[in-house]
Amino acid sequence: MPNHPPINFASDNAAPVCPEIMAAIIAANDGPSLGYGNDDLTRNVENKLKDVFECDLKAYPVATGTAANVLGLSVMTPPWGSVYCHQLSHIELDECGAPEFYTGGAKLVLMPGENGKIDPQDLDKTLSLSGKGVVHHVQPAALSLTQSTECGTVYTPDEVTVLSQIAKASDLGVHMDGARFANAVVGLGCSPADITWKAGVDILSFGGTKNGAMAVEAVVIFDMEKASEFEFRRKRGAHLFSKMRYLSAQLDGYLTGDVWLGNAQNANQMASSLVEMLGSLDDVSLVYPVDANEVFIRLGEDKIEALAAANFLFYRDANKELGQIRLVTSWNTSQADINAFIDCLS
Amino acid sequence: MPNHPPINFASDNAAPVCPEIMAAIIAANDGPSLGYGNDDLTRNVENKLKDVFECDLKAYPVATGTAANVLGLSVMTPPWGSVYCHQLSHIELDECGAPEFYTGGAKLVLMPGENGKIDPQDLDKTLSLSGKGVVHHVQPAALSLTQSTECGTVYTPDEVTVLSQIAKASDLGVHMDGARFANAVVGLGCSPADITWKAGVDILSFGGTKNGAMAVEAVVIFDMEKASEFEFRRKRGAHLFSKMRYLSAQLDGYLTGDVWLGNAQNANQMASSLVEMLGSLDDVSLVYPVDANEVFIRLGEDKIEALAAANFLFYRDANKELGQIRLVTSWNTSQADINAFIDCLS
Amino acid sequence: MPNHPPINFASDNAAPVCPEIMAAIIAANDGPSLGYGNDDLTRNVENKLKDVFECDLKAYPVATGTAANVLGLSVMTPPWGSVYCHQLSHIELDECGAPEFYTGGAKLVLMPGENGKIDPQDLDKTLSLSGKGVVHHVQPAALSLTQSTECGTVYTPDEVTVLSQIAKASDLGVHMDGARFANAVVGLGCSPADITWKAGVDILSFGGTKNGAMAVEAVVIFDMEKASEFEFRRKRGAHLFSKMRYLSAQLDGYLTGDVWLGNAQNANQMASSLVEMLGSLDDVSLVYPVDANEVFIRLGEDKIEALAAANFLFYRDANKELGQIRLVTSWNTSQADINAFIDCLS
Amino acid sequence: MPNHPPINFASDNAAPVCPEIMAAIIAANDGPSLGYGNDDLTRNVENKLKDVFECDLKAYPVATGTAANVLGLSVMTPPWGSVYCHQLSHIELDECGAPEFYTGGAKLVLMPGENGKIDPQDLDKTLSLSGKGVVHHVQPAALSLTQSTECGTVYTPDEVTVLSQIAKASDLGVHMDGARFANAVVGLGCSPADITWKAGVDILSFGGTKNGAMAVEAVVIFDMEKASEFEFRRKRGAHLFSKMRYLSAQLDGYLTGDVWLGNAQNANQMASSLVEMLGSLDDVSLVYPVDANEVFIRLGEDKIEALAAANFLFYRDANKELGQIRLVTSWNTSQADINAFIDCLS
Repeated sequence: MPNHPPINFASDNAAPVCPEIMAAIIAANDGPSLGYGNDDLTRNVENKLKDVFECDLKAYPVATGTAANVLGLSVMTPPWGSVYCHQLSHIELDECGAPEFYTGGAKLVLMPGENGKIDPQDLDKTLSLSGKGVVHHVQPAALSLTQSTECGTVYTPDEVTVLSQIAKASDLGVHMDGARFANAVVGLGCSPADITWKAGVDILSFGGTKNGAMAVEAVVIFDMEKASEFEFRRKRGAHLFSKMRYLSAQLDGYLTGDVWLGNAQNANQMASSLVEMLGSLDDVSLVYPVDANEVFIRLGEDKIEALAAANFLFYRDANKELGQIRLVTSWNTSQADINAFIDCLS
Repeated sequence: MPNHPPINFASDNAAPVCPEIMAAIIAANDGPSLGYGNDDLTRNVENKLKDVFECDLKAYPVATGTAANVLGLSVMTPPWGSVYCHQLSHIELDECGAPEFYTGGAKLVLMPGENGKIDPQDLDKTLSLSGKGVVHHVQPAALSLTQSTECGTVYTPDEVTVLSQIAKASDLGVHMDGARFANAVVGLGCSPADITWKAGVDILSFGGTKNGAMAVEAVVIFDMEKASEFEFRRKRGAHLFSKMRYLSAQLDGYLTGDVWLGNAQNANQMASSLVEMLGSLDDVSLVYPVDANEVFIRLGEDKIEALAAANFLFYRDANKELGQIRLVTSWNTSQADINAFIDCLS
Repeated sequence: MPNHPPINFASDNAAPVCPEIMAAIIAANDGPSLGYGNDDLTRNVENKLKDVFECDLKAYPVATGTAANVLGLSVMTPPWGSVYCHQLSHIELDECGAPEFYTGGAKLVLMPGENGKIDPQDLDKTLSLSGKGVVHHVQPAALSLTQSTECGTVYTPDEVTVLSQIAKASDLGVHMDGARFANAVVGLGCSPADITWKAGVDILSFGGTKNGAMAVEAVVIFDMEKASEFEFRRKRGAHLFSKMRYLSAQLDGYLTGDVWLGNAQNANQMASSLVEMLGSLDDVSLVYPVDANEVFIRLGEDKIEALAAANFLFYRDANKELGQIRLVTSWNTSQADINAFIDCLS
Repeated sequence: MPNHPPINFASDNAAPVCPEIMAAIIAANDGPSLGYGNDDLTRNVENKLKDVFECDLKAYPVATGTAANVLGLSVMTPPWGSVYCHQLSHIELDECGAPEFYTGGAKLVLMPGENGKIDPQDLDKTLSLSGKGVVHHVQPAALSLTQSTECGTVYTPDEVTVLSQIAKASDLGVHMDGARFANAVVGLGCSPADITWKAGVDILSFGGTKNGAMAVEAVVIFDMEKASEFEFRRKRGAHLFSKMRYLSAQLDGYLTGDVWLGNAQNANQMASSLVEMLGSLDDVSLVYPVDANEVFIRLGEDKIEALAAANFLFYRDANKELGQIRLVTSWNTSQADINAFIDCLS
């Protein structure tokens, strides 16, 4: 019988809200405030994001990562458009058709690629055969990159730049699913600008929920022309909050004092620690390089069962033959959690 | 210059979160919890709603009233269906086409009717001419009632029953937009069951946000057959929260100890007090009977300007010729707020 | 027992194909021809329409009137847009939600108005209260006029101009449902240009099927900027014909030698003759002025039954209390048909 | 300079209408006929299809192959559903997103497979990992097979049966894109029933246009429960013809005297003759086995250019490196056409 309460490696979204963000929510709960974003907190958050990204931009809070992704894609893609994305991407696998719904029926074109990253040559070749301008075919409209990726790797600024250039040569918009954007920034040690607008990204889902917030993401639009219809799309998707201040407060607490980077720093460090300690074990292998806060390992059936029995929470790949599990660290993963995990496997 | 901070009659959604609900949110922020509703808080909330409504049901938390309404309607209405609703209803006027989006293009058929209430004879007549079964015409699919209405009135249980019977005689589902459901229950002094499933309602948007919550509504499905596809629709609409526990915590705090009824009780009492005190003023007239927490009045241009200058928040009808404003009381409106308002007009 | 085969006043679409168009179809059936409009017939038809309308334009053949209307509207209206139309319009009443489908969920805003015509003052007032730019409300996007109207009346060039000017002052596109456009041109004795682009129309459904064709309409786009996405929308709607030449042949036969005007001339004359002869009868009253080829009359129950028994085909209003029927004349209605009808009523 | 008019191997839809069908159209052009399918021709066509398929069924004429496919799929697939199809299928590559449009945003899941045919093991494996019942994932809803395939091959009855059984074990509906169904029936020498409902097919796009008709396909529904909403979907898609009799007449002429099989017989024989004669040439290789009326070959750049210069019409693969062209024979391809083609290559 486990001698400890559940230890969470299931997902960073199974972690609670970090104290700074909870404090910001409580502070926002003071007196009346006009609804739908007509409040100072909301206005300030956009300014803070301008500072973070060192440029002009439009920023719109929403409450789920899927909402951020699909609303962002919807302003880049006509209903007869196509979105080029990795075959393991969240928008393809884990959003139950939300991208198709919000774009009015656009098609996701799936790209293979090692370690969850799209290969520039594949993208170039696929685009060259896409039938652009031919009425029988859906029309290439957007490239969507996940940063950090579904495999826990990150694209370097140069890699993003090369992919964006290929995309823009075919007039595609460039979208970045940044549900774990903070983990990528910390992993790369670059500036937020370096892997977004400076590398060709037009719209970013700037994630908060997985990194210590309660339920908030910001859709950050660098290509201001694409912003004009966003607000109507958000409202029509039922994602405009009347009590917007509580979303904005989360973003405010997240950005103030670089809480967002500190949270990701912890998550990434714990993942590094986990990788290092796993190295000493036989019969456990890493599936992908670990650049951020996700660790995929292969191990024996008996060990997987032992971990579950010992009250560790994690996801196992649906293809059970692989013997593969995913471990995600978060803002509140502790070294003790890592040690307990390694102990269980040793 | 106003000698007081803003006093909110703009909307009940401009009020802050009530203390009981904030406490419940804080209490939920304890340790890891599996995402997407796989948590005890979420399971318990459904049970509490079964107690409140004295029946079996399915309940799904979402974060906006529009999401609750349009997801509810979407499981009742095919894309070629029509939804019968009042011409002043929120789904028609204030949701930027979200009902059409979520239903895949259904049509709202607008009904007139005094004081924001659909007239049974009108409904009957309109349905009889709707061309049911004829391929050229959209097919009657749902009746949507707002309770309390956009005019601040309420339907009695008998009135709901009569309208539901007409609807069901034509095989329509019955939806209730209960963004201010608590105010209706308190205003009527009836049980929640009396004006919902006992009166023929199949799906209810059970409102929380306008009555003291941060951002939560429950879609309550009494007709269990309609529940099967709801979860896929919610996810695809990007309204499934990973950290669901914080939505469920709000509902938990809302229901526990009948906070929801207490909050509505205050709002309704303050509206009554306002109506009573307005009665003593010349040149101010009520537009509709006041059954809940909304008060519509007509008054002179000079008085409207005086109220705005004195830091009262309220909405004015877009048709300025009417000289009509809307005053909404909430869980934290005080008698002092009412007195100050009357003073300003006297 | 009727001593004659069915006599058609049910609809002009119950008439057969006129000989000139059938001859053009047969003539087109000669050797191979590349598909999807890459053929000379299709290219020529666009040129012929430029002559007819005395301007540059883009023209796209489709096979149904509903397809023409909804594809035309779809390039003017975002999913969160609204289309202002008469409450009796075909797009509202007889297209089973196709406008909502093709626009991605836009809303039809219904305008009253005598004799099937929208009143400029109503339009102006409604637009002024539409909440343009406000995120809660669907955004005014298009005005749709039916010419000739559902009541058999026509808008004069001046009337179209006034309505278009109001629409354009609010940045709406102007669409014309011309399923019976030829009947309107003949009825007015004006040029096709006078009641279209010269009067502010951006996109016209130029009807053929009801006026002697087999199944063809042309979507005529005067506002060339709106053409760019049309072809993708048509293909995606499954309305791009591989053997396009047979649609184009119909239009060719229709336009050559002004067959289209000759056909409408006969239909309108027969309607006039009918009206004149009805004037001699007691107990039969006209519902609307007759400007084109539709005649709405009120008469007794016994007479309606007598007409049906005598093998006359016609539509009766769903609201039977009205005792109202619709009589439509077509390119092949004869004076003998009219005489027989009057005999039956005398 | 070519000494002959264009010889069509571009597509069977570049061929004209066969004489029997044109005669049927002309014969239908006689007197009035009520619209929208309320005519005897339409009723009779359904009965003829019952005879052809030896079972009860519902049949709906539409005018394009894409309309047939996407309307058929739309009654099998919810907006959050997925359709399993070959990666080369017409619904994926050549319909500009129409399947996504008509299903409200369903996802096409692409299956590899030799010679244009889905491999049963691949299907089984993919379905087993599809996440059925899990709210994050689109839900498997339909299998779509193309018969004959995009590569000119055919599925045997046993192959269809095996795939259908796998599909039905996961509650998928089975759709067959039969744009070249007649060619498959002739190629297999089986009965129409053998490769449709007897092998598990629920809905068939029964093609006419590519096999001698002007513009008609029949959506044949064997699973009658799926028929109830079809008519509303067809109308809402703007595919219900007012002058339906001219679609039905085409089907009537097509079915009477087995014209449909005779036309396909000629196309297939000409393809066989072409294959045989190509066998004598060096430097020309077949890409796929030839089971019906499509022949894919690889040949040198100079030969491709020579064929084009000599007025042969054909499609070349967009990936020019392949040196691959497609040759389609039709109801009116002659041995002289084949001979001329071979002469040009010799």
